[in-house]
Amino acid sequence: MNRVTKSDGEPVYQKLAGRLEVMIRDFSLRPGERIPSVRQFSSQQGVSIPTALQAYVTLETRGLIEARPRSGFYVRSQALTPVPQPAENLKALKITNFAYTDPLESLMADHTNPNIVPLGAAIPSNDLLPGIRLARTMAAVARKLGPASAAYETISGNETLRRELARRSLEWGCGLTADDFLITLGATEAVSLALRLTCRPGDTVVVESPTYFGLARILREMQLKAMPIPGDCATGIDLEILSKVVRKTRLAACVLIPNFHNPTGCLMPEERKKAAVELLVRHGVPIVEDDIYGDLQHAGPRPRCLKAHDPDGSVLLCGSYSKTLAPGYRVGYLAAGRWHEKAINLKRATTFSSPLLTGLTVAEFLKNGGYDRYLRTLRQSYRQQVDRMRSAIVENFPADICLSRPQGGFLLWCKLPETVNAVELAKRARSAGISIAPGPVFSPEGKFHNYIRINCGFPWSARLDRAIAVLGQFVQEATN
Amino acid sequence: MNRVTKSDGEPVYQKLAGRLEVMIRDFSLRPGERIPSVRQFSSQQGVSIPTALQAYVTLETRGLIEARPRSGFYVRSQALTPVPQPAENLKALKITNFAYTDPLESLMADHTNPNIVPLGAAIPSNDLLPGIRLARTMAAVARKLGPASAAYETISGNETLRRELARRSLEWGCGLTADDFLITLGATEAVSLALRLTCRPGDTVVVESPTYFGLARILREMQLKAMPIPGDCATGIDLEILSKVVRKTRLAACVLIPNFHNPTGCLMPEERKKAAVELLVRHGVPIVEDDIYGDLQHAGPRPRCLKAHDPDGSVLLCGSYSKTLAPGYRVGYLAAGRWHEKAINLKRATTFSSPLLTGLTVAEFLKNGGYDRYLRTLRQSYRQQVDRMRSAIVENFPADICLSRPQGGFLLWCKLPETVNAVELAKRARSAGISIAPGPVFSPEGKFHNYIRINCGFPWSARLDRAIAVLGQFVQEATN
Repeated sequence: MNRVTKSDGEPVYQKLAGRLEVMIRDFSLRPGERIPSVRQFSSQQGVSIPTALQAYVTLETRGLIEARPRSGFYVRSQALTPVPQPAENLKALKITNFAYTDPLESLMADHTNPNIVPLGAAIPSNDLLPGIRLARTMAAVARKLGPASAAYETISGNETLRRELARRSLEWGCGLTADDFLITLGATEAVSLALRLTCRPGDTVVVESPTYFGLARILREMQLKAMPIPGDCATGIDLEILSKVVRKTRLAACVLIPNFHNPTGCLMPEERKKAAVELLVRHGVPIVEDDIYGDLQHAGPRPRCLKAHDPDGSVLLCGSYSKTLAPGYRVGYLAAGRWHEKAINLKRATTFSSPLLTGLTVAEFLKNGGYDRYLRTLRQSYRQQVDRMRSAIVENFPADICLSRPQGGFLLWCKLPETVNAVELAKRARSAGISIAPGPVFSPEGKFHNYIRINCGFPWSARLDRAIAVLGQFVQEATN
Repeated sequence: MNRVTKSDGEPVYQKLAGRLEVMIRDFSLRPGERIPSVRQFSSQQGVSIPTALQAYVTLETRGLIEARPRSGFYVRSQALTPVPQPAENLKALKITNFAYTDPLESLMADHTNPNIVPLGAAIPSNDLLPGIRLARTMAAVARKLGPASAAYETISGNETLRRELARRSLEWGCGLTADDFLITLGATEAVSLALRLTCRPGDTVVVESPTYFGLARILREMQLKAMPIPGDCATGIDLEILSKVVRKTRLAACVLIPNFHNPTGCLMPEERKKAAVELLVRHGVPIVEDDIYGDLQHAGPRPRCLKAHDPDGSVLLCGSYSKTLAPGYRVGYLAAGRWHEKAINLKRATTFSSPLLTGLTVAEFLKNGGYDRYLRTLRQSYRQQVDRMRSAIVENFPADICLSRPQGGFLLWCKLPETVNAVELAKRARSAGISIAPGPVFSPEGKFHNYIRINCGFPWSARLDRAIAVLGQFVQEATN
């Protein structure tokens, strides 16, 4: 490399990072390869060690390199898998009832069936989650409470937990207080309350297409119509189409998953988050933000929430610890903005209050630093599992597939050749002991017939290897 | 007594019990007095020991005598407090929006405030509940599960728990199977789901008057109207008025609390339960049964449910372990009859599933016999506390009050002289450090201005003694 100077105003570390990025993208630096240490790089380039480090951190943030403890920096294998991300020809869609075949019950049953390879449900392996440590924490907090461990929690939910959430909201780009939060039964109760607060039966709600299929269930039970807006893997919901729709359709709410979207994995770029909030607020459309994957970035800082751009309490932020700590604890939260008081009343009339011990246990784990330590390991596991799964898919599937390149979470969204019927594929896979989620269940309009979503929530194993080989063969056969 | 023979067809033990009842009611046998042992009585009356025992059990069932371990049988003090139960001049009422001042938040806060005597909320003392044993059970089940303790519960809820409920449903006069139950977040989620399953916004629902004020919150959030039907302490909802209303009003559902009603304490006589179900089913009105106090009889067998008389799945049975084991565990259930499948779908769209560990812990406690052993003690505690509170009230309040004589639960419903304004009384009591629930909050039509509900969920103490003396003085002053 030529010596880099900051003659043209761009910081030196950014120029260095840019050059390294080119080398990674053109395979000059190969996936899995160890790159020079920070000290070596600083001396090679004639820059200070902080500058060299800043360049590496920038690349890490972009998901191109990764630090391995006591070993140095490596080019991430995901960075170089030369498969494009899925992208559709985006066009406006019609209001729909989100008709679909509900796969949830069977996907969940598959998940706990030892004879099935669980690539279907978006549920991580129990072995990655700190179940044992949480149980120990719960036993300790219960002992400390004594007989009071049987008592009611307040309706707003555990105060220690709400204070922890407030503290963490700074990381999300917000500055919420403990009193802004209502503790819920997972993100499902949060989203369900948020929609009941903002919508009446018969109303129309903007959803992304594709989107999480649990949302379809919620809309259907509330008799809400869906107005799907296309979203892709790279930038999320199409703002141009959204801005047209917002102008001509009466919308009761808009549900967005801006951070590591399910199923696309998309991390909405910050300026697009801001633009989306501005657009929707300008047209008076409440925003239901599902941030359930927000803590699961593969590298760099925790992404911000839409709520960070909320000017006036129009964003109802929903989250939970179901993807990070314990699905079965059912600990989630809702920061309902200007609907907060109403949210408390509605919670009181629907589940009264959340369980004391589960909330207190999560609070304690967050407070004593256990969560943050554990999260560092979990993010690395998810990242490695996603990378490994991508490699296996690229190796075993036809060359003309598209595959998401998520920067967080543990889900892959895969576009197969046009001739493949994903529902049929899922059936065949299931009969071979492999559970996958077919594209149409994520589609309000019955699209994505040739897409599948793959759960990477399990550590890599020979069993997964074989499953992807079998799946690849089925896809090949369906393609011919 | 004359010798009793079964010459006229009535069993001997019933005749014996009838005579003893007369002696108790006319104070020949005084409250608190020890009556002859079964052996003595059998020899005195010249009947077999089983017959004598059967007579005593009959009186126990009627709440007139009580067995004290290793001591014998005693006349219950409640049996002889010569105060009538409240009874109103029952007449048909009008459909209403159940407007009232919601006291819940403040009553709950009072309950945990160490400076307040908690006679307001219907919450038992933590010291009566097996919090420590449950926490130990939870630690054990979590240890056994290992990492899987963090996992999702199924949507229907813990299977062991549902099997235990099925087994226990025989006691309720039902024969439900595990698959008939959906585990909920307390009875609140059960009632809330039941009403969402049967009603649409704007519909009218029959409620008892008075009734549990949490129901008002649920109706209001669902935009349901209340059609109040008077119910008294002795026989419950007025079936004559109900039958008229049912004929002329379109009703979406009817919510009843047949066993140890909140606030009246009424145990609906069995034949009236049957008649109520028949009437409502004949007119196609779904019945939401709140059986939250059903396990808390003071004597005799567990009362049956309305569900026992359900011919065709029209009864949606709601219950929970919040009044018996652990309010903060939020473990309840719904047996939704013909709405069962829909209930599962609705649960999935609102809270997804209930927490694993709390449900499993209650299941284990039920299964290993811990619950039944503990319940025997709890029933005795509640009974003694209610008796003691009744005596204290009779002693300290004006002579012309009426006072419920509940056969179960831990609540008293007290009618004060007409001139007393219960809301003002509650305010004055609160400023003297005593929390009580004023009558109007239980009334869909703003009635019961001179009633109060008293929580007897705490073991008797000098503090309670003083509180009732102070309260009595306030009532006296309000009367003059």
